[in-house]
Amino acid sequence: MLESLKQEVLEANLSLVEYKLVLFTWGNVSAIDRESGLVVIKPSGVEYSKMTADDMVVMSLDGKKVEGELNPSSDTPTHLELYRSFPEIGGVAHTHSTFAVAFAQAASDIAPYGTTHADFAFGSVPCTRELTGSEIKGDYELNTGKVIVETFENRGLDPEKIPAALVRSHGPFTWGKDASSAAKNSAVLEEVAKMAYLSENLGASPASKSLQSKHYYRKHGDTAYYGQK
Amino acid sequence: MLESLKQEVLEANLSLVEYKLVLFTWGNVSAIDRESGLVVIKPSGVEYSKMTADDMVVMSLDGKKVEGELNPSSDTPTHLELYRSFPEIGGVAHTHSTFAVAFAQAASDIAPYGTTHADFAFGSVPCTRELTGSEIKGDYELNTGKVIVETFENRGLDPEKIPAALVRSHGPFTWGKDASSAAKNSAVLEEVAKMAYLSENLGASPASKSLQSKHYYRKHGDTAYYGQK
Amino acid sequence: MLESLKQEVLEANLSLVEYKLVLFTWGNVSAIDRESGLVVIKPSGVEYSKMTADDMVVMSLDGKKVEGELNPSSDTPTHLELYRSFPEIGGVAHTHSTFAVAFAQAASDIAPYGTTHADFAFGSVPCTRELTGSEIKGDYELNTGKVIVETFENRGLDPEKIPAALVRSHGPFTWGKDASSAAKNSAVLEEVAKMAYLSENLGASPASKSLQSKHYYRKHGDTAYYGQK
Amino acid sequence: MLESLKQEVLEANLSLVEYKLVLFTWGNVSAIDRESGLVVIKPSGVEYSKMTADDMVVMSLDGKKVEGELNPSSDTPTHLELYRSFPEIGGVAHTHSTFAVAFAQAASDIAPYGTTHADFAFGSVPCTRELTGSEIKGDYELNTGKVIVETFENRGLDPEKIPAALVRSHGPFTWGKDASSAAKNSAVLEEVAKMAYLSENLGASPASKSLQSKHYYRKHGDTAYYGQK
Repeated sequence: MLESLKQEVLEANLSLVEYKLVLFTWGNVSAIDRESGLVVIKPSGVEYSKMTADDMVVMSLDGKKVEGELNPSSDTPTHLELYRSFPEIGGVAHTHSTFAVAFAQAASDIAPYGTTHADFAFGSVPCTRELTGSEIKGDYELNTGKVIVETFENRGLDPEKIPAALVRSHGPFTWGKDASSAAKNSAVLEEVAKMAYLSENLGASPASKSLQSKHYYRKHGDTAYYGQK
Repeated sequence: MLESLKQEVLEANLSLVEYKLVLFTWGNVSAIDRESGLVVIKPSGVEYSKMTADDMVVMSLDGKKVEGELNPSSDTPTHLELYRSFPEIGGVAHTHSTFAVAFAQAASDIAPYGTTHADFAFGSVPCTRELTGSEIKGDYELNTGKVIVETFENRGLDPEKIPAALVRSHGPFTWGKDASSAAKNSAVLEEVAKMAYLSENLGASPASKSLQSKHYYRKHGDTAYYGQK
Repeated sequence: MLESLKQEVLEANLSLVEYKLVLFTWGNVSAIDRESGLVVIKPSGVEYSKMTADDMVVMSLDGKKVEGELNPSSDTPTHLELYRSFPEIGGVAHTHSTFAVAFAQAASDIAPYGTTHADFAFGSVPCTRELTGSEIKGDYELNTGKVIVETFENRGLDPEKIPAALVRSHGPFTWGKDASSAAKNSAVLEEVAKMAYLSENLGASPASKSLQSKHYYRKHGDTAYYGQK
Repeated sequence: MLESLKQEVLEANLSLVEYKLVLFTWGNVSAIDRESGLVVIKPSGVEYSKMTADDMVVMSLDGKKVEGELNPSSDTPTHLELYRSFPEIGGVAHTHSTFAVAFAQAASDIAPYGTTHADFAFGSVPCTRELTGSEIKGDYELNTGKVIVETFENRGLDPEKIPAALVRSHGPFTWGKDASSAAKNSAVLEEVAKMAYLSENLGASPASKSLQSKHYYRKHGDTAYYGQK
């Protein structure tokens, strides 16, 4: 079932290696088939170089394995919570990319210092609060998803306009319309995080709201004029 | 028309990938045929690995598409303004290379800390002022070109001796006698920016004027003695 | 003798090159055959690209060469001391990887700022005290092993839960169940060290004990649920 | 003439590209045939990918071209001064490698923070004083060599034990017994400079004299026991 989606999810997972965002078996990408409500995700702890489309695991949105011989990524409950809460997204990616993790470990948002950021996200990429001891001891991966959703709700953020969050002391989750764009957003986030790190060291202030708006809407939404029709 | 120039512009665009200055479809290089006043530029948002010389777009200096099925780079008006105002240049390149962007985001010139810089540019690489809200809401890409030109005029800088500018909160534009040298200057600027970043962290002061002059004129102009005849 | 172990040790040494942890002939990996008490280790100062399994040197645990035409790594006595004192380990790796060395040179532990660290080690990666003048002039490489063991003993650390140490002013040693996992731990340590460096610059504090515990035991021990059975 | 030395010098120049120490036509390596007193050096401004052994230029020690159709590297007088003043060396390399340049631009020695440095050089890698205006306007490249020699003489340094110098506001020169080892020393210096940069940011102090001595003499001179006989 969902053979072409499995192939897409496989390729998006392999793109994390190509983008140099992962070591060994780290990282994972999933996609959802919104019609059936089924999610396809990378298996846990399998080497990228040996992974095939058939290794991808199919899950229901409420967390039951529907198909697949392998265990799904241990971060699966986080992905599922994002799909349940953000109905506009079609793919989710998670990495421990170096600079994005550094901001997450420093409990810091990534502020919008310039147009590279604004081309990607409209406003700061938020960092969540710390999970409580009982959230960690309980359904940890589910609660990781919930704290991302809570952050967007509490701060009035739009997951279509900010396709990424940092989980405090952990690292980034990104999303997009499909698996491939979720993975690409992980690559862009890492570059934006590196630029923000260097810019802060040089004493930067965030870009003006009007510049951010210009660049974001140059590339996104009905008024976009970047790219081809 | 301009088939060999299209090939040159294609290759210069592909060199940005080789120099590791761009992610995905970021960046763009153009060149001008000064006889006809026509500019050849990369199309907007096309993947480098799929781009051909036929995809290059031909524009008139006043911004009308003369040939090409694709939309030109959204930064085309910036390129055209540079060609109109700097008659000595033959190629323009734009990237979001990491360290050059960091200086642009920090609203900082790149000061000439040593001979690597002086081999490339005679004096600081300037960072423009912020664009005003109305400049951003109006002809944004044209105004991006204008603020570069304004910076050179107001500070009495010579675009032949300083083949690069940082647009504040955005990133670098570089130029040269042709598309290839404009792209190479983007690579050199990124290396010079990285060295400047590290040097500032170590407490550096700019090199003496006489050392800058020695190195600049060792490589440029009538008295140059670097390289072969 | 021990032909398959020699092959494993060769491949683990070559993986240091693949992981970009070593320049020229730097670095070394060994493994022990606990039944016979024999240790297989890289020869000293041989180029990775020319090394074969037959070049691996077999040593007894008390430091006598048992087989091999070449001199063993000059760090052999350090490896042997670790095998003698840490009976649960099967492989040892040593590199001069950049960020781990920086912490060693700064006489600093690598603090556990997040889950990437906690997936790898339960608590700080310790940095040893300085060796005394007489420890350096005496059996230097043996004393290097002893100061690692002393650090673990004095601080009550478990080498199974913290598979790495920094030797002050020198660099990292890592270990694992075999040669391959020791080498992989060198790669993970370097990434963790880089993240810690960046996080400290951004003002990070260590992750909570409960988060560290969650991630460590998600991947290690009887309660692990990461990966496949 | 000197065909095998030309081949060695070609290969050492190409190794600078492999070690990722140079952009475009930057950098140069030479070697001397002490019997004839002739120096073989890279031509100026030629692309590495197109360079052949026949392009290498043969110079006399007093700076006359003996063979070769191309202009020698513009840094040739610096190389010749080093050969004249340091009779023990057989090869010289010059790069603008990023971290070594940053220390040169910051007018800072590279202090010996640990064993990676001590394996390479016994004590700080010195940075020269600034050249005066008249030294720059006069025989600039010759004076660049002279200020390196002056630095070693004034500070009582031994070029056999410290195979590198930083020329202030410029960058590193390294040397060795032949062209290949001079180029390798450029790669090691860059790595040592990067480690020193990170270590200083983490608050490091130089390693003890006894540790430096141990490591230096473990690899160099009559008492060395690193490597094979």
